[in-house]
This record gives sequence, C-alpha cells and structure tokens, in this order.
Amino acid sequence: MFKIGIIGATGYVGTEIIRLLVQHPDIEIGAVVSKSFTGRSYPEIYPNFRNLFEETLLDMDPDLLCEKADLFVTALPHDAAKDIIPALIKRGRKVIDHSAAFRFRDKNVYETWYKTTHGMEDLLKKAVYGIPELYRKKIAGSDLVGNPGCYPTCAILGVAPLLRNKLVCLDSIIINAASGISGAGRKSDLPYSFCELDENYKAYGVAGHRHTPEIEQELSALAGENVVISFTPHLIPMKRGLLCTSYLDLKDTNWTSESLYEVYREFYRNEFFVRVLEPGTLPETKNVSGSNFIDVSVNYDSRTNRAIVVSALDNLGKGAAGQAVQCMNLMLGIDEKTGLTYPAYYL
Amino acid sequence: MFKIGIIGATGYVGTEIIRLLVQHPDIEIGAVVSKSFTGRSYPEIYPNFRNLFEETLLDMDPDLLCEKADLFVTALPHDAAKDIIPALIKRGRKVIDHSAAFRFRDKNVYETWYKTTHGMEDLLKKAVYGIPELYRKKIAGSDLVGNPGCYPTCAILGVAPLLRNKLVCLDSIIINAASGISGAGRKSDLPYSFCELDENYKAYGVAGHRHTPEIEQELSALAGENVVISFTPHLIPMKRGLLCTSYLDLKDTNWTSESLYEVYREFYRNEFFVRVLEPGTLPETKNVSGSNFIDVSVNYDSRTNRAIVVSALDNLGKGAAGQAVQCMNLMLGIDEKTGLTYPAYYL
Amino acid sequence: MFKIGIIGATGYVGTEIIRLLVQHPDIEIGAVVSKSFTGRSYPEIYPNFRNLFEETLLDMDPDLLCEKADLFVTALPHDAAKDIIPALIKRGRKVIDHSAAFRFRDKNVYETWYKTTHGMEDLLKKAVYGIPELYRKKIAGSDLVGNPGCYPTCAILGVAPLLRNKLVCLDSIIINAASGISGAGRKSDLPYSFCELDENYKAYGVAGHRHTPEIEQELSALAGENVVISFTPHLIPMKRGLLCTSYLDLKDTNWTSESLYEVYREFYRNEFFVRVLEPGTLPETKNVSGSNFIDVSVNYDSRTNRAIVVSALDNLGKGAAGQAVQCMNLMLGIDEKTGLTYPAYYL
Amino acid sequence: MFKIGIIGATGYVGTEIIRLLVQHPDIEIGAVVSKSFTGRSYPEIYPNFRNLFEETLLDMDPDLLCEKADLFVTALPHDAAKDIIPALIKRGRKVIDHSAAFRFRDKNVYETWYKTTHGMEDLLKKAVYGIPELYRKKIAGSDLVGNPGCYPTCAILGVAPLLRNKLVCLDSIIINAASGISGAGRKSDLPYSFCELDENYKAYGVAGHRHTPEIEQELSALAGENVVISFTPHLIPMKRGLLCTSYLDLKDTNWTSESLYEVYREFYRNEFFVRVLEPGTLPETKNVSGSNFIDVSVNYDSRTNRAIVVSALDNLGKGAAGQAVQCMNLMLGIDEKTGLTYPAYYL
Repeated sequence: MFKIGIIGATGYVGTEIIRLLVQHPDIEIGAVVSKSFTGRSYPEIYPNFRNLFEETLLDMDPDLLCEKADLFVTALPHDAAKDIIPALIKRGRKVIDHSAAFRFRDKNVYETWYKTTHGMEDLLKKAVYGIPELYRKKIAGSDLVGNPGCYPTCAILGVAPLLRNKLVCLDSIIINAASGISGAGRKSDLPYSFCELDENYKAYGVAGHRHTPEIEQELSALAGENVVISFTPHLIPMKRGLLCTSYLDLKDTNWTSESLYEVYREFYRNEFFVRVLEPGTLPETKNVSGSNFIDVSVNYDSRTNRAIVVSALDNLGKGAAGQAVQCMNLMLGIDEKTGLTYPAYYL
Repeated sequence: MFKIGIIGATGYVGTEIIRLLVQHPDIEIGAVVSKSFTGRSYPEIYPNFRNLFEETLLDMDPDLLCEKADLFVTALPHDAAKDIIPALIKRGRKVIDHSAAFRFRDKNVYETWYKTTHGMEDLLKKAVYGIPELYRKKIAGSDLVGNPGCYPTCAILGVAPLLRNKLVCLDSIIINAASGISGAGRKSDLPYSFCELDENYKAYGVAGHRHTPEIEQELSALAGENVVISFTPHLIPMKRGLLCTSYLDLKDTNWTSESLYEVYREFYRNEFFVRVLEPGTLPETKNVSGSNFIDVSVNYDSRTNRAIVVSALDNLGKGAAGQAVQCMNLMLGIDEKTGLTYPAYYL
Repeated sequence: MFKIGIIGATGYVGTEIIRLLVQHPDIEIGAVVSKSFTGRSYPEIYPNFRNLFEETLLDMDPDLLCEKADLFVTALPHDAAKDIIPALIKRGRKVIDHSAAFRFRDKNVYETWYKTTHGMEDLLKKAVYGIPELYRKKIAGSDLVGNPGCYPTCAILGVAPLLRNKLVCLDSIIINAASGISGAGRKSDLPYSFCELDENYKAYGVAGHRHTPEIEQELSALAGENVVISFTPHLIPMKRGLLCTSYLDLKDTNWTSESLYEVYREFYRNEFFVRVLEPGTLPETKNVSGSNFIDVSVNYDSRTNRAIVVSALDNLGKGAAGQAVQCMNLMLGIDEKTGLTYPAYYL
Repeated sequence: MFKIGIIGATGYVGTEIIRLLVQHPDIEIGAVVSKSFTGRSYPEIYPNFRNLFEETLLDMDPDLLCEKADLFVTALPHDAAKDIIPALIKRGRKVIDHSAAFRFRDKNVYETWYKTTHGMEDLLKKAVYGIPELYRKKIAGSDLVGNPGCYPTCAILGVAPLLRNKLVCLDSIIINAASGISGAGRKSDLPYSFCELDENYKAYGVAGHRHTPEIEQELSALAGENVVISFTPHLIPMKRGLLCTSYLDLKDTNWTSESLYEVYREFYRNEFFVRVLEPGTLPETKNVSGSNFIDVSVNYDSRTNRAIVVSALDNLGKGAAGQAVQCMNLMLGIDEKTGLTYPAYYL
C-alpha cells in the first residue's frame, strides 16, 4: 500500500481525489491537509464521507506530513504552492501539483499570464506535464508532475492526432470550450451563487484566458512549430462536465470523417482512457462525468475543408483528479488504470 | 385594435407569442389554432394562462380564420406551412411564418438543406427576411415575412457591423453557438427527456446544421460577396437563452476592443433592441431571457488579429416570438417597440 | 402617475418590484435606493434593465427621497427598517415594508422569533398585514403595510377556506413547503453557491422556522382560536417558485374532493389572483412563476379523513414583489390588478 | 465469482445496477436482457460504459439465461414480472424483483393498488421484503426478494425506531416526500421532457400514491398494529436524490432532539448504511446521491410534541439498485457491504 497526502483537501479537486482514492486498492490516504479547517474531521466539511473516510485535517507541516505519505497531491491556490512544494521535494517526496506553476516549460510564460513570480525555477526543470497519453515515460520517472488545467487536457487530447501528424495549418486554430461550474473551485463569491448562474450561460476570459498559453505550449510541442490559438471558455449551468469544439484548417483536401477517424483510431490505439467515437456519434458530458475518460469525435466539414473536433471530459475527472490519480499510478509504478475504471454516472 | 391569429398555438414559440400578445396594448388575439388540441381551451394546454386567456383552440379553417384576424403567425412544423399560408395570402391576410420556408431567397438552398420541396415558390418572391434591424422598410411594406431561425438572428446581428463595413476576411468565419432546450420545440422524444439532458452538454449538427445556409445568406448579403462558414450548435441544460461566439479574421491590424466597439456603436446607433456592451462587459443569457433584446460584445484578440464577437438573446424572444412581434408591429404600422419593452427576468 | 420609491432596490425582491413597475401604466419609479451601490446606475447592477430603466441608485436620505416619491417599498434586511421607515411615515409617506417588522400584531412574537428589539411599536399599531384577499379594506386605508413572507402567503391562502369555515381541527395542522433559492435573497455565502445547491434538496429550519408564528397568527385570526402548527421548509434547486402541501384533519367525515372544491370556489369566488383548481388538477410552480397568481388544489384523503391542500405561487411574485404591487394599487386607490395581469413564463 | 443477470437492463434502475456491479469484486455480470434492444451492445444504449462493459443485450429466454447466471435482478414494468420470474425460480435461480409484485404480503393490497392480477401467488409466500436493516436473516435465506420502492425505503427506515419502540401515535403519521426525476424511469412522455420539468416543482399522487400501502405494511409490522398514513410525493427538478419529511405525534411529552437521537443511535447501532445525524445536522440529498447510504435526522418539535424526521437517500442507490446489491450480497453469502462502500458524488 502506498501512502498519499492531499494538500488542499477541502477544495473541489481535493475532495474528488479523496473520493477516488478511498476506493483505490493500492493506495491509502496518509494525510489530508487544510489550513482553513485544521483539526476538523473530513466529514464535517464533506458529509458524504461519513462512515467511509473520517480523518482529521492537518496543518501544513512538512516534517509531520512526510512521515505520513510518500507522494503528495497539492491542490492549492496558485501562489500557495511555493509554501510547501519545495519542502516536500527536498525531503524526497514526490509531488503532483494541481496549480499552474509546473505546467509551463518557460517560467516567463507562467509569470506573464498568472501575474506572479514563479519562485521555484530550479524545480521547474524537473517537472513533467501531467498528460500520460503524451508523456507516459517521463511521468513515470518523475518526482514532480504539473497536473494540467481541465480545458487544456480536453483541447490538447482532442486535437493531438492532427498536430503530431502535421495535417493542419497552425495559424488558424480556434478552440471553443464550455465547462460546468465546479471548474471554478469552491467559491463563495456572488457571481458563483446559485441564482446568478442557474439557467444562465456566458463566455468569459475572451482573448485572454490563462489556459491559452498552456494549450499553445503543448500544441506547439506536438506540431514541432509555434502555434497560436484563439481559446474561449464558457460557463454551463451544471456542476461538472467540460466540452471543447475545435476548428482546424486541413492542409490537404481529400479527407472524410471516416479517414480522419482512422487517424485518431491509430493515434489512440492503445489508450484506454481516450475513446475515439465513430463518425456520426458525438460526445456528451454525461457519458464522461464521474469518470476518467475523454470522448473524442473528429468531423470533416467539407464546405470549409476543416476538421471540427468535439472532445468531452469531466473537468474534475480526466480534467483534474482523475488524471492526477492516473499520473500517481505511473509514478508509483502500478498499473495506470488502477482505481480509475469507473463508468460515468450518466444519471 | 388589430386582430392576430396564431396558427400552431400550442408549440413553445406559439405559446410565447401568446404570452407577449396578451399584454400588447394594440393587439387582440383573434384566433388560436391547433390541430392536435382543437376544441380545447387554451389553459387546458398551458395552465399559466388561466384567468388571462381562455380562448378555444380552433381547427385549420382558412375562411373561418380570416374572419377572425388580419395577420397570422404560423408556427408549424416545416412542411405544414404549405397547408395554410397560400390560403391566407390569397384571402388578403398578412403572414409571419416561423418555418424555414420563407427565409431563403433561393428555394434550392431550402430544398437541399430541409430535404423537401418548397411548393410555394410564387410566394417566396414576396417574402422578406424578418430581421427589422436589417430589413425594416421591406418588412413594413410586406405581406409575408419569414421569421428567422434563433441561431441565425443571434449570429447575424452579432457580426453584421464587421461584414457590412468589410472589415473581415470572408473565408474563415467560425460561429460557435449554444442554446437552451426550448429551441428544439415541445418534444416528447427520449433524447429530450429531463434525465437525458439535465447536467449534460453536447454539440449537435456538426458540419451540417440547417441554420448554416441561412446565416451564410445574410452574411453574404451584408458583405456583398459569398460567405461560407463553420457553424456548430450545442445544447445547454436550461430552458431558454442562446449565445453565439463568433471568430472573424480582421483585414487590418491596428484594431483594439475600443475601436471595434465604436464601429458597433455607430452601426447600431438607433437600434433599441440591440445593446452593444462596452469593452470589458460580456453578455449573459440571463440578461436577455424573457425579453426581445440581443446583447453584443466585440472583442479584439491581438495575438491572432481576430474579432471575437459574443452575442446573446432569448431563443424564444428575439430569436423567435419577440422578433415576430417586432415584425408584426412594423407590418401593422405601429411603433416597433410596442408590447416589447420588458426587461429579461434575470431570476 | 404615482411615484414610488424602492429602498433596498438591489436585492432580489427589490429588483423584482422594479421589473413589475417599469411596465405599470399608473406608476413611475421616483427613486431607487441602495446603500451598497449608491451612485451607480441600475443596469450596472442588473444589466437586464439596460435601455429600460437606468436611474442612479440613491443613498438613504429621507428628505431627498420624500421629494421623489409618495409611497415607498422597503426591502431591507430585518433590522435596517428602523433606520428609515419612521422617518418616511413622519413625513406623511406610505410604506410597504418587506421585512418581518410589521407583519406581527404582537411585537413580543416578532422579538422572540427574530431575536431583536422592534423599536417601532407605535407604528406597529397602524400596520396592516399585506394579504389583500384577507385584508383588502384595511390595506386600502392604511399608510403602513407589512408585506407577508413568501411561505406564509402560500400557506395561509392555501388553507384559509377550511379555517374560516371551521371545518378542521386546529391542533394537528402540518404544513410542508419547498421554495426556489431566490427566496433566500441575493447571497454570496458558500452554502448558496451553485455547486453546493445544484442537484441537491434539503430541509431547513425544522421545528423552528421564523415563518411559523406568522402563519399561526393568520390561521388563528381566520379560525377565531389559537392555532399551533408544524411547518417545515425545504430548498429546491431552481431559482423561483414555492409550493406548500398542507395536511388538516377534517371535523366531519362526509367530504369528497368535489365538495371541498365547492367550499374553495365559493370562498375565492371573486378573487382574480387565487385560482382554485378542479379536482384532479394539481398546481405546478411553472404555472405561477413570473406572475402574481397562487394556484390552490384541495384534495380529500378518505383513508385518513384529511384535507390535503397543495398551493403554489412565485416566491418573488405573489410571495413578495407581486403582492407588494397588489397592495400598492389598493393604497393608491387604483384597480388592484393594475400591472399584474401577466401570465407565468412557463418556459 | 458469482454470476448475476439483469433483466430490464436498459431502464434507469437496470443501468445503475450494472454501474455498481462492474466494480463489484465478487460478482461478474453474466447476462443483460432487454427486449427492446436485443442484439445491441450495452454501450450503444449507455455510452458511458464504452471500454468497461460491452456485452450484448439478450432476449428473454429462461433456459439460455439460467446457463449464464445464478441470481437475477428483474427491473421490468410491473406486469412483465409474470413473464419471467416463475420460470427462473422453477429452474432454481434466485431473484431480486424490482417491481411491486413481491413487496406485499397480502396480494389483495397489490391487486387493488396496482390494478392488476398478481398471477404468482404461490411465489408470494416465499418472497421477503428487501430492506436488510429489517429483514437481514430472511433475505439471506431467501430465493426471492421484493426490492422495495424508493419512497418506502426512505420513509420506513426514517421512522422505524419510533414505531418499533412504540413511541408514537399510529393514526396521525404524515409523510411528505420529494424525489429527483429518475425515479419515474426512462420515459419519453411529454410531461417528463426537460422543458416541462426544469425549474418546476409539483406534487403528484395526492391521497392515492401506490407507495402508501407499502409504507403502511411495514410501519404496521414495526408497530405491531395497523397504521394508516397520508403520503404525498413531489417531483424535484434534478436527476437523483430523494428526501422524506415525516411528522409523528409522540405519546409522551418529555422528549428532546437529543433523547430522540439516542433512540435512533441505539436502533441503528450496527447499521453501516444508516447514518444517524447529530441534532442540529440535517440530511441533504447531495450527501447520499451516488451511494447506498441513507441519512436520518430526528428532531423534536416542542410546540406540537411531534417528532419530525428528515431522511434522505438516492432513489437509484439505497432506494433501488444499491439496496438490490445489498440484498444480493446477503443472498450470495458474502459481506453485505461488498461493492457498496462508495461515497456520494457531492459534485
């Protein structure tokens, strides 16, 4: 049994990781940390865990924590990472960080878009971007993984086959996305109150959302050339689920939805968690919410010679906690699928 | 007092028109028609009208109907228009048709995309596309108006200033859209049941939705050249509200959100129902649902030199019934805003 | 044209009153007051009012306000009433207060349940409980009306015929109720955030909700004897709408749903806003939300000899703002129905 | 490994059972049956199962089915049970039936309320009511279990301690309940379409819902005397979750919420799936939805000397599929909690 610590255990990503780990056959939760709720038992904050997981929330004490776990997931606000991650790494522990701090190769990009100083540049060198389908070996051999943003995972895995195979123009990619509200975190701000969001739909972060450079970094890596995109997220009046609709100009013209499907099928041939849908079938978030799957459908728009890719995942699942557990399994040397073979709830 | 007849009075568009007209100071509802519910009183189908509007639903009898009203709104399935509209026009009545039959100038486009024969070509010549902000004079002088589709109204009014002013490339326009479920009509099919749609989000009609040629027709008219677009609609788990996010490549490079805003402000200077939002403010469907307003925000994406337009309206309001009443007022020669100056519900 | 001032104009009740009054033919909004947003224009807080109502929010200055309006609706937190209402009454203005301060005849009941001192006892003597169907003449002749709570209006009007006609036992009445979230007001507390309330249902205020004594006061007045009830509210994951299910033991045994219906039909014979449904038809909140109607259905449970009453209204409509406008019309001496003859949205 | 067959595999209860069983360590799904979808693979109907469970749906062939499984869960419309259950029992298989046919001891009660003839009276004698907390030993030794209705399980377990301990009057019990829409099953009727149910709340089955006699049967068994209740269900605009609020007159008067809590704690001392909440804490459906737990809170209403019990479960979980798996474990002789130790989703 491996022991895992979750730091930032009372945010939505934190509680979703705990929900997955309490049923993980090879993992025991060694420590749960929350500065806001130190000393409280976990079900006091999340009553759904009564009778199942009743540990006391601990304070941020690196020495104490390192006695209790070998690998930590940190799900803290972006600047709080600096307070704890170096201390854990120094003590020889592995870390999966859910903030944006370790997602970027170039710290200047992070500092520009997140309007803060990185402060952990030496660690940045050893960090690996946490999408197993792209960086499996590196993740398995790493001590520090930057858990990707939810929108980026959905967008990147959605278009990766087209970019790596150099099938599309790189200067006209448009990614439109929408997510359930839990992606914003456990907030008490008025704009996130029920009456302000129910039966409402809106765009946000137009022409400037922080996930843009993260998506561009990975698409550029896939393509081998610089990629600049337009990315627009939207908020859906539901709790979880995320869907991207991506538009890419194809270089050649003799495509069909079937031939594009073959490219995707081949690219994701061995990937259990990436389900490539047959032409004519489109993803729906209810088919992935509560699971670690991402459903992808590539469609040929003959009138404009575009590939229109629709990809859907659970922003809390494959978009955050599920992917963290997937990386965790790799880093611990166990089967990547362990503890993740749940179907989406559908209902 | 003018007398209006609503044919197809028990669909969602029909009942929304009635909801607007029962409070219209210059209009009396002369007849409500439903083949499915002939003989029933209206509140038997829509109990919210008890004590307010309790007329009996009539059968489709043109002579009887023409005694009761001078202008008719037909909100019927696409092929049912043929059964009644020619009869009404022949008897000298005015018609606003909510089907797609009179939205297209070229009947071949209609027949190709709607997989049916038009059957009313001679009437097609006199039909006017029902967006007052673009065709005000023609609508006012017409006896036959094709009420636009909900997505098209939102998309067209969203990007019109850019096209008419010839500021954008015409071969790279992408329009991503999402709508509440009432846009699909009053359906009992399993895919529209509550449990299949609640907490779910999905794309549909990818690379082939029937609103595509309608949007292209109007964008081409605005630009004076042929326009081909990619258009993808999505379903939101809410009842009403519709939002488009449109991406257009600008020809010149020295734009800002403020300068684009000035173009929009000028273009819509006198348009009461088109609210151009200041830079930094984005539309939300709750600000328009239940009203006849469309909110528009144009944003400059400096990294890609694109204009990203976000436009939102109520698919049942400015997207259908509200716009029908707006055209109705013009055709009756009364103030265009009559009976339409309601704020959105917000709650 | 009468001039009305709304104090507490940016809460949910305040904005709903404004939504109703902007279309009221005999009323002009003379002043809107908000201490939190003084100096801002109304659409900055509620963008749905752009182009329709763009007044500047004023501070709480009694002299200035009394120049601008003759009647005020105060929709403030419970203790803020003391700061302004006496000043308005002293200057000869009429007031409809939405707090609980003027709902109770016995100030001790108010002070016990609301854990505060009343502070305006002399005004309490002249206050009238604001349900027109019960106190029409008194409201019309009053300068100070206590606008009832949403649950109380729904419960009281639901069971009034049975109590006034002395048909039921008074010691076994149970009222179970549920409401949409807007009833809690415009809140930013975590328990009211979207993710904490969506797809969730719960009871609250069990055996101690503050609306209990208010309901008991009116049921006792109707019955002519003291009534003690159990009342339990619940929160529904929707924005607006409220429904009560009330259980009352009948004294006699030879009832049917039809004979109980006759009692209700007679009792509410002339009441436009109370719609008594025929046996076999039950209320649904969608039939009342967005309107000033309350739908009532009385059902006979032969197995237990009980009357089970289901009543539904819009917590923001007949449960708050709509009823305030109804009282306002009476106090201004105009037709009670003015500005309130809107059907519920249904969609 | 035990082999289970699910007959009626494509209804909502059926798919929820499959969702639970695909992760059950001791159970293998041997057969899934659907007459509507015979020959289709399961993910064609429920795409969330792609890559996880892809079996072909079989026809209703008892001989073939009995080769594939030893225990069957039948989740069919009420009269379809007759077509298959006797054949399975005859062949020596165990059955958990989700219809109402085997919930009643007195077949006349079933036939009266369900307006049908039982047709399997001899089997009725051996059937056991499937609430393990009440009938554990009998279930373990039975071949035929009638899976209770969702409302009955919630109500019965909610009030059982008060009845068995003879603490309450038996002629004044009132049970008010509300459920998410999945409780109605996978329906394509108009009243269950999204737009007809979203943002809507209503009562149904007033004074005559078929779950009434089922609840009365069990409460009478607990009390040792005949119990007659009023039971009113309501529909909540959400997919899953069910909550009962029950009112019971206490015989004695010297109670408090704490002393009632002690009664409940003792009664459910060893029951893992029944979580008795401390005074001051109330159930919320989000804390149980997706799990097999039922949360119960007993509250003392001193003003009326009543116990007000609030109990919440997942209508698909402990209210149907979860409880079926719990009974299944008992009938198979394995740990009752196997495959059921999941926390509710919360998000």
